[in-house]
Amino acid sequence: MKIIRESTPLEDGFRMPAEYERHQGCIMIFPERRDSWQYGGYAARKAFVQVAEAIAESEEVTVCVSGDLYDSARALLPPEVRVVEMSSNDAWARDYAPTFVKNSQGEVRGVDWGFNAWGGLWDGLYFPWDKDSRMARKLCDLMGKDVYDKRDFILEGGSIHVDGEGTCMVTESCLLSQGRNPGLSREEIEDILRQYLGVSVVLWLPWGIYNDETNGHIDNICAFTSPGHVVLAWTEEEGDVQYAMSRACLEYLEQALDAQGRRLKVHRLPLPRPVTVTEEECRGLDPCWDQPSRRPGERLAASYVNFYIANGSIVMPGFGDPADREAREILQGLFPERKVVQIPARDILMGGGNIHCITQQVPM
Amino acid sequence: MKIIRESTPLEDGFRMPAEYERHQGCIMIFPERRDSWQYGGYAARKAFVQVAEAIAESEEVTVCVSGDLYDSARALLPPEVRVVEMSSNDAWARDYAPTFVKNSQGEVRGVDWGFNAWGGLWDGLYFPWDKDSRMARKLCDLMGKDVYDKRDFILEGGSIHVDGEGTCMVTESCLLSQGRNPGLSREEIEDILRQYLGVSVVLWLPWGIYNDETNGHIDNICAFTSPGHVVLAWTEEEGDVQYAMSRACLEYLEQALDAQGRRLKVHRLPLPRPVTVTEEECRGLDPCWDQPSRRPGERLAASYVNFYIANGSIVMPGFGDPADREAREILQGLFPERKVVQIPARDILMGGGNIHCITQQVPM
Repeated sequence: MKIIRESTPLEDGFRMPAEYERHQGCIMIFPERRDSWQYGGYAARKAFVQVAEAIAESEEVTVCVSGDLYDSARALLPPEVRVVEMSSNDAWARDYAPTFVKNSQGEVRGVDWGFNAWGGLWDGLYFPWDKDSRMARKLCDLMGKDVYDKRDFILEGGSIHVDGEGTCMVTESCLLSQGRNPGLSREEIEDILRQYLGVSVVLWLPWGIYNDETNGHIDNICAFTSPGHVVLAWTEEEGDVQYAMSRACLEYLEQALDAQGRRLKVHRLPLPRPVTVTEEECRGLDPCWDQPSRRPGERLAASYVNFYIANGSIVMPGFGDPADREAREILQGLFPERKVVQIPARDILMGGGNIHCITQQVPM
Repeated sequence: MKIIRESTPLEDGFRMPAEYERHQGCIMIFPERRDSWQYGGYAARKAFVQVAEAIAESEEVTVCVSGDLYDSARALLPPEVRVVEMSSNDAWARDYAPTFVKNSQGEVRGVDWGFNAWGGLWDGLYFPWDKDSRMARKLCDLMGKDVYDKRDFILEGGSIHVDGEGTCMVTESCLLSQGRNPGLSREEIEDILRQYLGVSVVLWLPWGIYNDETNGHIDNICAFTSPGHVVLAWTEEEGDVQYAMSRACLEYLEQALDAQGRRLKVHRLPLPRPVTVTEEECRGLDPCWDQPSRRPGERLAASYVNFYIANGSIVMPGFGDPADREAREILQGLFPERKVVQIPARDILMGGGNIHCITQQVPM
C-alpha cells in the first residue's frame, strides 16, 4: 500500500463513483460497544447480520470484527461473507472506512480523511476514536489499494453524497460545524471536496434530520437515486420541528443546479412518526464516560433515506410504521432494476445511525 | 469461507505442494511477546522485517500484527508488504498459519490443525494459545479459501515437510510426543497425514535438533530441496550431543525410499558451533508465568536447515559462524536458480525458532 501525499485524486484523474454505480463489494463492522448498543449488542448484531446477508446476495461483503468477537461473527454470518479481524471503537463503516475513488482505467484508491468521532472534543460522541481513525488505512492495506492521506481534514463518509457526474451534496450543519474544521472557510472546504472527490459542484443543504447527533449528515436526509434525481426526507406535519428543516432543504434543492447544469428532481420520501427511546432500552446501555448515552423519550433520527444501494438491491430500514410501505414503494419506483429489501432497523437506529451508516461500498 | 468436515483433501483430490513449487505468497506474524523476544522485541522485529523484505522481492508477503503494533509494523515494513491486523499469542506462522493444499485445477484450500503451543499442558511452551489456534481459520477467511477442519489432531506446520511427489517427512520425537496426540498410534497418525497432505509415504526421522523446544521439528533438521534430495543438519563433532542424533537420522534416511521408490540423496549441511544465551539477553526477557523463559548458557537450536524457499530466493539464517559461508554455498549449489540471502538470525533464534518457523507459503 502506497500512501499518497504529493497529489490529489482530481490531479491524478480519480473521482468518487456514485453509490448506484457497480460495486466490487461492501465493508461493514460488527457492533459491540456497550454504550451504543443495548443489552450487549445482541439485537444490533442480529440486525447487522440481516443487512450483511441482504447485501451479500449481490456483492462481496467483508465484516470487520474485534478479535474477541471473531468467533461469534463467524458463527452468525453466512459463509459467503468474509470476516476479518480489525479493531474499532464502534461500528460505522460509512464514516471511517475509506472513501473510494476510481480512474478511467478502473484503478481504485482510498481516501483516508481525518476522523474525530463526529466533533472531537467539541461535540464528539465518544473518546477515544483512535481505532476508528486507523481503519481507512488498514482497509486499503488489506485490499492492496493505495491511499490518499487527507487526515488533516475532518470528514465522515456519511456527510457526503455524490452523483458520479461531478456533483457532491453536503449539509451546512455538519461540514461547517465547530467540531470539524473550524479553521477552514466554506470555500476552502469546497476546494478540498473538489480535489478529493473529483467533483466540480458542491450543493449545501442547510440541515439534516432533527436530533441527528452527527450534526446532521446528508445521508440521513437526502440521497441521489440517479443523476439529476434525489430523495428528500419529508414530513407534512407543519408542527413538527423537522418540517422547517426539510422545507428549507427542499427550497434549496429546487433552485440548485447540478454539475451538469440540470435542475434536480426532488422525490419526497415520507418520514416515519417520531421514534423515541424507551426506559427499557436505556437500562440496557452502559454510560459513555459518566453520562447516560441515551435518555428515555429521546427522539432518534429515524429516516428511510438511510438506505444502501447494493448491486442487486436497495437495503432500507423499516420502523414498524405505517409509512414503511409507502417509502418502500417510492424507492422501488426509483430503482426499478433492484429488489427493495426492508429490514427492521430500530436496533440499528438505537446506535445513532442506520443502514447507510453501517455500510461502505467498494467500487468495481 | 466454507468449513469442510465431511471429506479430506486426499478424497477431494488435494495435496500439499512442496515448498519449492511456485508460491502466491508468504504469511508472517510480527513478534511482540516479551517472554519470547528480548528487550521488547525491537531486535526481533528488525530481523523479521529483513526476512519480509527479502521474500517480498519475489512473492507477496502478508504480515499479521496486533492492533497495538499495526502502526509500528506499517512504518517498519516496506509498502509492497501487506500488513493486516490479526491477534496471536506469538509469531510462528509456520506452525499455526494454515497448511495449504491444492488440486489439479489449481484450487487452494487450507487445513486447520489443532494447535496447543507445542505440547499443551504436558510440555507446551506458553498458555494460553487461543489466539494462535484461531489464525489458520482467520487467514483462510481473509484469503477467501475454504478450510478443512482437523482441529481434533494436534500438528504444527514445522513438524512436516513434503516433497510434492507423495512423500512426507516427520520426526518421531515430535509427532509421537505425549503432548500432541497421545491417543493415536503411529499408524493412525500416518493415516491422517496421508488423508490431509495427500501423501502416500511418511518418513519418520528419529530426532530433531538437540534442545529444540518443539520436541524436535523436522524443519530444523532436515528439508527437501528437490524431489529425491534432502539437506540434513550435520556435525562432525563426535563428542557433541547432536552427533548421535544427526547420525541416527542419516542412517534412517540412507535406507529409506520415498513415495516414488527413490533412494534419497542426503546432503550434509554443517551446523554452526553451539549458540548459547547470554546473561544480557536473559535480562531482557519477561518470565513466562513465574518461570524464566531462558537461562544464561542455555543452548539454542541453531541450524541452517531452517531456511525459507521463496519463488526467487532462499532466505536462510546466519549466525556469525565460520560455517555460515559453507552452508550458504551448499544451498546455493542445491538451488542454482534462486538467490541465496543470508540474514543474521540470532534475534530470531532467541525466540526458539528460525526463518522457516516464522514463514508459511501460500501456493500459487
